[in-house]
Amino acid sequence: MQPMADASPPKWHLAHTTWFFERFVLKPHVPGYTEFHSMYERLFNSYYNAVCEPFPRADRGHLSRPTVNDTLAYRAHVDGAMATLLEHVDESAALETIVLGIHHEQQHQELLLTDIKCILGFNPLAPAYHASAVRAASATQDAYGFCDIPGGAIEIGHAEGTGFAFDNEQPAHLVLLQPYRLGTRLVANGEFLEFVLDDGYRRPEFWLSDGWDRCKRGQLGPAPLYWRQQEGRWFEYRLDGNQPLVPHTPVVHVSFFEADAYARWKGARLPTEFEWENAATTLGARNHAGNFVESGVLHPTHAHGDARARRLMGDAWEWTPSAYHPYPGFRARAGALGEYNGKFMSNQMVLRGGSCATPQSHIRTTYRNFFYPQDRWQFSGIRLAQDL
Amino acid sequence: MQPMADASPPKWHLAHTTWFFERFVLKPHVPGYTEFHSMYERLFNSYYNAVCEPFPRADRGHLSRPTVNDTLAYRAHVDGAMATLLEHVDESAALETIVLGIHHEQQHQELLLTDIKCILGFNPLAPAYHASAVRAASATQDAYGFCDIPGGAIEIGHAEGTGFAFDNEQPAHLVLLQPYRLGTRLVANGEFLEFVLDDGYRRPEFWLSDGWDRCKRGQLGPAPLYWRQQEGRWFEYRLDGNQPLVPHTPVVHVSFFEADAYARWKGARLPTEFEWENAATTLGARNHAGNFVESGVLHPTHAHGDARARRLMGDAWEWTPSAYHPYPGFRARAGALGEYNGKFMSNQMVLRGGSCATPQSHIRTTYRNFFYPQDRWQFSGIRLAQDL
Amino acid sequence: MQPMADASPPKWHLAHTTWFFERFVLKPHVPGYTEFHSMYERLFNSYYNAVCEPFPRADRGHLSRPTVNDTLAYRAHVDGAMATLLEHVDESAALETIVLGIHHEQQHQELLLTDIKCILGFNPLAPAYHASAVRAASATQDAYGFCDIPGGAIEIGHAEGTGFAFDNEQPAHLVLLQPYRLGTRLVANGEFLEFVLDDGYRRPEFWLSDGWDRCKRGQLGPAPLYWRQQEGRWFEYRLDGNQPLVPHTPVVHVSFFEADAYARWKGARLPTEFEWENAATTLGARNHAGNFVESGVLHPTHAHGDARARRLMGDAWEWTPSAYHPYPGFRARAGALGEYNGKFMSNQMVLRGGSCATPQSHIRTTYRNFFYPQDRWQFSGIRLAQDL
Amino acid sequence: MQPMADASPPKWHLAHTTWFFERFVLKPHVPGYTEFHSMYERLFNSYYNAVCEPFPRADRGHLSRPTVNDTLAYRAHVDGAMATLLEHVDESAALETIVLGIHHEQQHQELLLTDIKCILGFNPLAPAYHASAVRAASATQDAYGFCDIPGGAIEIGHAEGTGFAFDNEQPAHLVLLQPYRLGTRLVANGEFLEFVLDDGYRRPEFWLSDGWDRCKRGQLGPAPLYWRQQEGRWFEYRLDGNQPLVPHTPVVHVSFFEADAYARWKGARLPTEFEWENAATTLGARNHAGNFVESGVLHPTHAHGDARARRLMGDAWEWTPSAYHPYPGFRARAGALGEYNGKFMSNQMVLRGGSCATPQSHIRTTYRNFFYPQDRWQFSGIRLAQDL
Repeated sequence: MQPMADASPPKWHLAHTTWFFERFVLKPHVPGYTEFHSMYERLFNSYYNAVCEPFPRADRGHLSRPTVNDTLAYRAHVDGAMATLLEHVDESAALETIVLGIHHEQQHQELLLTDIKCILGFNPLAPAYHASAVRAASATQDAYGFCDIPGGAIEIGHAEGTGFAFDNEQPAHLVLLQPYRLGTRLVANGEFLEFVLDDGYRRPEFWLSDGWDRCKRGQLGPAPLYWRQQEGRWFEYRLDGNQPLVPHTPVVHVSFFEADAYARWKGARLPTEFEWENAATTLGARNHAGNFVESGVLHPTHAHGDARARRLMGDAWEWTPSAYHPYPGFRARAGALGEYNGKFMSNQMVLRGGSCATPQSHIRTTYRNFFYPQDRWQFSGIRLAQDL
Repeated sequence: MQPMADASPPKWHLAHTTWFFERFVLKPHVPGYTEFHSMYERLFNSYYNAVCEPFPRADRGHLSRPTVNDTLAYRAHVDGAMATLLEHVDESAALETIVLGIHHEQQHQELLLTDIKCILGFNPLAPAYHASAVRAASATQDAYGFCDIPGGAIEIGHAEGTGFAFDNEQPAHLVLLQPYRLGTRLVANGEFLEFVLDDGYRRPEFWLSDGWDRCKRGQLGPAPLYWRQQEGRWFEYRLDGNQPLVPHTPVVHVSFFEADAYARWKGARLPTEFEWENAATTLGARNHAGNFVESGVLHPTHAHGDARARRLMGDAWEWTPSAYHPYPGFRARAGALGEYNGKFMSNQMVLRGGSCATPQSHIRTTYRNFFYPQDRWQFSGIRLAQDL
Repeated sequence: MQPMADASPPKWHLAHTTWFFERFVLKPHVPGYTEFHSMYERLFNSYYNAVCEPFPRADRGHLSRPTVNDTLAYRAHVDGAMATLLEHVDESAALETIVLGIHHEQQHQELLLTDIKCILGFNPLAPAYHASAVRAASATQDAYGFCDIPGGAIEIGHAEGTGFAFDNEQPAHLVLLQPYRLGTRLVANGEFLEFVLDDGYRRPEFWLSDGWDRCKRGQLGPAPLYWRQQEGRWFEYRLDGNQPLVPHTPVVHVSFFEADAYARWKGARLPTEFEWENAATTLGARNHAGNFVESGVLHPTHAHGDARARRLMGDAWEWTPSAYHPYPGFRARAGALGEYNGKFMSNQMVLRGGSCATPQSHIRTTYRNFFYPQDRWQFSGIRLAQDL
Repeated sequence: MQPMADASPPKWHLAHTTWFFERFVLKPHVPGYTEFHSMYERLFNSYYNAVCEPFPRADRGHLSRPTVNDTLAYRAHVDGAMATLLEHVDESAALETIVLGIHHEQQHQELLLTDIKCILGFNPLAPAYHASAVRAASATQDAYGFCDIPGGAIEIGHAEGTGFAFDNEQPAHLVLLQPYRLGTRLVANGEFLEFVLDDGYRRPEFWLSDGWDRCKRGQLGPAPLYWRQQEGRWFEYRLDGNQPLVPHTPVVHVSFFEADAYARWKGARLPTEFEWENAATTLGARNHAGNFVESGVLHPTHAHGDARARRLMGDAWEWTPSAYHPYPGFRARAGALGEYNGKFMSNQMVLRGGSCATPQSHIRTTYRNFFYPQDRWQFSGIRLAQDL
């Protein structure tokens, strides 16, 4: 099912990632390949207009057929053909697309979890997806700190020849940064609760105009997406069920508008994607990461910092105030796969760092995720910054 | 799932009919009855505001929990309690409500089929619900005929003391009818196709203003709900799958607006609910009925008439141009069950006669079904009438 | 301007009533008539699809041209041609249409006032249309009373050969009525205020389902259309400005849903259009009418009754629970003018009796006005009835 | 009137610019100042939440009062008080706000023209605002050319102490630019027509995803906003009326989505706001400008270039692919006037250079205008760029 258009049904994710290999690897590269079902090309096409008119996104949840079993059979069919192809993959002209397909599937692994959370979290019964794996962390929390980072001409983006990256991370190029201060950790639930209790969602002075419009229309607020107040106490729906709000875990499921409003309330701002990437590179973010999907926790665990801005990766995607736009000299891929990233380069904001639902091998310091400023169903959180 | 707000998921029908017995029979009449789940009172409340704020109708399809198995367990729990209660039912103060609950469940048996048809018919794969049971009927068809029916002061409605009837069929009362002519059968697909091919959906002169607005906005037309044109040929999705349009079976899944426009194009009109009931009573409709759900065909089979207007019951609900309003002296039931019928007495039209999805024991000549004039997902068809 | 789609700009009314004579009288009946402007046929066509595709209703308020002066010149042009034609009108084949055009213009005289009230009443400055003409009535008010009216076979509708009537009032026919009780006057502001203060707009038990949906969505309530509460006191915007609510003048600007809910709260119901017409005929309503537009008051003045149900006409249109449907044997006019009334015979309710904005010569006891059950911008009020 | 929410009525512009001086200059700085009307504070507040809840933007067109005369009286009242204050303005603490108010009024001078164009252009009668002032230009047109511009570390933004600028142009800062090629003139109608005739609006490969959605929903296309095709010929509504499309005047009234799609179709891209500003600064744009409002033409006149990218200013605002975001170190003004610019820094795109409706003294090379990517009612056009 699909409680909102953005969140696709689990079955659809299974079929679509399969479709990707069938459509972009098997059909062009395996002579004589027999497609599993003639109508799946359209049903599981997400948005590639060059392939065919996609089935309407908002109706994915109404596809009672194929069943889950049909979908698994489709997957087995494509897996079999892929296995055969992969025996000769080193020489295969399809290699680059296969690698892309695997990264694509990793993205859907994360979406599968956030969309399941949306489905279950929508339900008044608040069913849990898994047994709780969140460990009781220390009850005390350090004050929110900042570390100073020097500016300069910084290289941003993915340098050619250094492994896989999406086209939107390229080409690498220099950007001038002024010195800045970066928050040493993600903002915690308890801190965001102060904003809520200070009437943050009802005071226009903290909000961008488009965000405030959403507040007034009841589309944002009165708290992050999965927070509920019951008999005076605050709860947060997590993948392990409806739980009392833990003050020192990072706040997640906030939109860019909420992240930005919180920062303004706090006398700070959000870090740009370049400030973030610069810090992640210079501070060795990969060696000091928070938790990814492999931990099995499926919720951000840390809102602890130290003197440096560590744990930039994992736990929660970090909103930046940077529009998702092409880098200078950007070239989309040729053919239908050119629609993968480039055509979304308007109206969306960049998020960085990966989350507790991201496969660890999927993320990079140059990785650019992007969502609309009002989107909240991802594990999206807040890191603060300030001018120096 | 729920492709449109009107069509509830099968699981929901199971739970709601169970809820009806729990809420209106067991809770008030069985001391010490333990409810199955504290939140089901709200989740499966269809529209009884006196019980509690119902769960939003349009979101029924997003309830991933309770699962089908949970729902069957709920049903078993309630069935068990009902069985115990029924051992003493003759003396039970609950008897009247139990009978109502059974009629209520019969209504949902029909809705279950029309909603499943909506779910499957929405799907581009057009999956069949059951193996075809439609028999090849004679290829020839009689011309559309009328029979004359005298007017007079006619008794309409359910006379007290003659078995079960809904409150909206009561009290019986006299109505003055002028003599009229009634079509001897339902309008057939082939006849409605002529209207389509004559640009019927594009000519405002046949349409009520509100229907024409819907045509212009693309909400009605270019054909009945489940018709599709593929490579120049017409098909009709039925519960046995997508089938070539059979010209001589009755047209179904038309709205009141389409029925009315067709009649005007044909130089006729629709029969009022009183004209229909008068004919059904005097012609002995029950003895000459079309097919009901018990036949297993699940599609109207007959569009054949004879000199008299037989087969007034079964096959397809017949749209009337009568607003669904209370009869003189109407009294709604007391308590929450008063919301069963009375509060819908605005903006809807009466349909008469039952359909191929109606249980035979459910229907009566005085039975008043009602839907909005734009509704099309029921087995609703057309019988013509004329002034004499 | 046009604060809502239903309320047309004054300039448009002037042009449209002129258009009616140009299009239906001058063009077909005056050889060599020169139309004033080739594009006005479309711009001022209200809804006659047989003439041409009408200019969209909701955009009438955006027509900066023609100006008021252009429109008056258009009117003078058509008036001149009509004057010439009228010199020979007795023999004119156009006579019947000219009479219809005059009745049409009377209808727009009323709409002009209700639409101006909508425009001015929308404005936070609450400008008055005219100096107050409401006289201080007696401060005391009689209790709400009923008179008994016998039933029987009653003639309803306009008998041929007795002067002008619209097609929707015809043909005259017999209807069976049961005895009933009819309220002796319109419901007063003070009485409706009790309903408001008793949380009437927040209690679903009084409301038809479609009306309650509108309450929940904030489209109805918390009081009649032009009521405002300011610092604890109630005001009513009238055409003489924003005024303290007068308890004993009739409540107006309520929808059918509000009228029906009020009646249910009061343990009564609304009279059907047949009950109303029967009373109006037998009680000689024309001789005991309330105020019409000629009084210049432009607001209902009386909520006083006596032992009989007088003042059935004037002051406020009275909502009935009767759907606006054709009478048995109804025939719409031939040609484009057949769209005048008949095509609106779905989804609307009948109102009877005329209002303080109706020309006195326009109204009849058989006159059927019709609006959607949610409409509130007319001078629509409430008379109660009960079964006997 | 207000054919769409974005385009305010002329009267409102008069009142709002007056309001600005009353609210931000007279009330805080003139002791004993008497406001003209107590309700105008709210009615003519555009969007300053810190002042009061603004009157809803989409309803401005429904304000029948104050009349034009009332508004002019309001303006005279405020002008009088301003004249008195200005006698001492050098010492006035209000000086900075007065200057801002004048620049604010210049912005509304431009909006007044584009909103009047919207009102008149909406009208099927296509009334002209003024007699034609567009001179017949040479019938021939140069091919579209590019000039090369070197990159480097470029100063962007308004340097302090060099005259008035809005807060959003500050602070000045260095940006790294790669070498690029800039189109030597605006794209012409005839060139854009080729895109239209090549089915540009129906081919998804040229469009950003959000733009394509709008095309499919009929919200963009099939041509620029004021183009109409009549009997096979193309016309463009201009402020001098509906005119045959002139091939060599610049295309205007395109959205960012259309500008971007055209560029992609052409194998080019749009220049970033930094590329634009760099070129404008280095090429001395102010000395080689197109026409501004002072010319009285009220339509772009030139689509001629030379070897250099001249006429960067005037004629048409030039869409850039740069999101309207704060410059590093941006500080909004203090107080309510901080809402002037900063709160709009999401979801909008920067346009540069001014148009034929812009006062010449209002524009600067550092000036940043901003609109939503779908907006089309401004004089917005297209200049191409390419990577070098």
